[in-house]
Amino acid sequence: VFLKNEILNPTGSFKDRQVSVGISKAREMGARTVAVVSSGNVAAAAAAYAAHAGMECYVFVARHAPETKLVQVKVCGAKAYRVDTAHASEIFSLVIAACKKFGWYHLSTAGMYNPFNVEGAKTIAYELYEQFADGLPEFVIVPVGGGGLLGAVWRGFTDLAELGLITRLPKLVGVQAAGCAPFVRAIQNGESPSETFGNSWTNPETIAGGIADDVVFDAHTAIPAVRNTGGTAVAVDDAQILAAERLLALTEGVFCEPSSATTIAALEPLREMNVLTDTSTVCCLITGGGFKDVESAQSLVEETRLIPAELSAIAHPISS
Amino acid sequence: VFLKNEILNPTGSFKDRQVSVGISKAREMGARTVAVVSSGNVAAAAAAYAAHAGMECYVFVARHAPETKLVQVKVCGAKAYRVDTAHASEIFSLVIAACKKFGWYHLSTAGMYNPFNVEGAKTIAYELYEQFADGLPEFVIVPVGGGGLLGAVWRGFTDLAELGLITRLPKLVGVQAAGCAPFVRAIQNGESPSETFGNSWTNPETIAGGIADDVVFDAHTAIPAVRNTGGTAVAVDDAQILAAERLLALTEGVFCEPSSATTIAALEPLREMNVLTDTSTVCCLITGGGFKDVESAQSLVEETRLIPAELSAIAHPISS
Repeated sequence: VFLKNEILNPTGSFKDRQVSVGISKAREMGARTVAVVSSGNVAAAAAAYAAHAGMECYVFVARHAPETKLVQVKVCGAKAYRVDTAHASEIFSLVIAACKKFGWYHLSTAGMYNPFNVEGAKTIAYELYEQFADGLPEFVIVPVGGGGLLGAVWRGFTDLAELGLITRLPKLVGVQAAGCAPFVRAIQNGESPSETFGNSWTNPETIAGGIADDVVFDAHTAIPAVRNTGGTAVAVDDAQILAAERLLALTEGVFCEPSSATTIAALEPLREMNVLTDTSTVCCLITGGGFKDVESAQSLVEETRLIPAELSAIAHPISS
Repeated sequence: VFLKNEILNPTGSFKDRQVSVGISKAREMGARTVAVVSSGNVAAAAAAYAAHAGMECYVFVARHAPETKLVQVKVCGAKAYRVDTAHASEIFSLVIAACKKFGWYHLSTAGMYNPFNVEGAKTIAYELYEQFADGLPEFVIVPVGGGGLLGAVWRGFTDLAELGLITRLPKLVGVQAAGCAPFVRAIQNGESPSETFGNSWTNPETIAGGIADDVVFDAHTAIPAVRNTGGTAVAVDDAQILAAERLLALTEGVFCEPSSATTIAALEPLREMNVLTDTSTVCCLITGGGFKDVESAQSLVEETRLIPAELSAIAHPISS
């Protein structure tokens, strides 16, 4: 199992790849104001790159987005609004209308709304090709919300195949939270991309806020990403996600957010499904840092004890 | 003004440089348990690297360390204690005693307690040499708590000079928070390193928790770092620090913690002191991420407004 660690991007998630391309295009087209729908990571990236580019930035997040993510956004000068809904699709409708009314540039990373962003995300596939110089892993496991990342990774590998640089694409596996799994349902039911897009999830409910999209906005690329590579899709519940977040921190020292931990949580179910075996080579995308969502991580640990500055206060230590 | 951005290290601060070397030496020596004194960043690094190395980790932080930093530490499996004091020197005494009693390896980054760590921090100077291929800047501005970073950067440049790779060292400027400035006092009063070490700050009080050390533990390298390079030291108050944190985020999209923002806050005072002029070239070290201390950043921004999913709710937008 390999990790593709996206935590160390400038604002702490893979979204910097998309937004850095998107904002450059926005500037090229003369935009002065950008707007995004976000669970938090796109917002952080958009706010930071807009600040650097001297542009105004409006950010619209769902009701329950972690405040931690919004502090970063607001310190960078973006105007942030919580929209009173748990349905990303409703926020998209609002922002599309606002972009029309006010002349804002729509920088959301769903490929169907901003194709330039996709070009940024494809670099994950290009980098994996460089980093696995001895041959790509059999499987690449990708968290799926709107499906844009999964679709972009697939398109990146497709570019490499068209250039003759690779002869075989890794099998792409999409992971969702059980509480919001329209993509997993679509793969299981054999839905077409347009059926998937139209078949929204009624009641999104998961701690993995980064992938709690009720609609698979990028179904047109995410569905073939799985079907055309012989991959699959799997759902993991919140308890599995938190256990995986903890496991990754305890064993590797990598502190990721719940949406990212889904790719680790998927390993065991995929073994039980006989998708993975003992000899499989797997790369899990770790898409964002744990500091993005400290609130949910707090449930994994006890409160820090306050002790006096005395040796006797250090109880039951493990000596080496 | 250039930034040396240390936020993108594995755990979000420059301390990864020290601790990655320190933990390797600890392992080489057969240690199974490490312990650190920390304001939070060393703790995060130690917890992550200890997890990766399969070692136990004990972390001792001051009373007011941000809980955000401790979540990361505890998720990685380290045992964290808040010690009921604002004086880093008291925590050091406690941890030194505990290391003796329990056979722990002392991984704190103060060079006087762990010389190996210093070798890691020197790489900042080596990288600056590589990155400024056309010539190093005239000034490098470094946040100072215990002085270990300033001393290590100086020793790194000294290595380069001894190797004949550079003929002139940058002038090194140490910045402290006005509420805990024993190093600035020492430079102003012409104290020797041993005088500085003995002359602790009575009442540390600043939002820049990362540099609120009451004792300049590494005075023996930090004092000559300034004196031998023709540099200086300057103190900035909490209002200046927060304003600088905000300025950096608004103009560059870089979200740093208060201890890091001191190097930006120092620019204006250094101009007023005629240390810097319009033609000076300066590199500010940005030592840690703003997500490390979201609590203090929250004071810079308003609470996020909750709006219904209706276009009329977006009031007074700036159209482009």
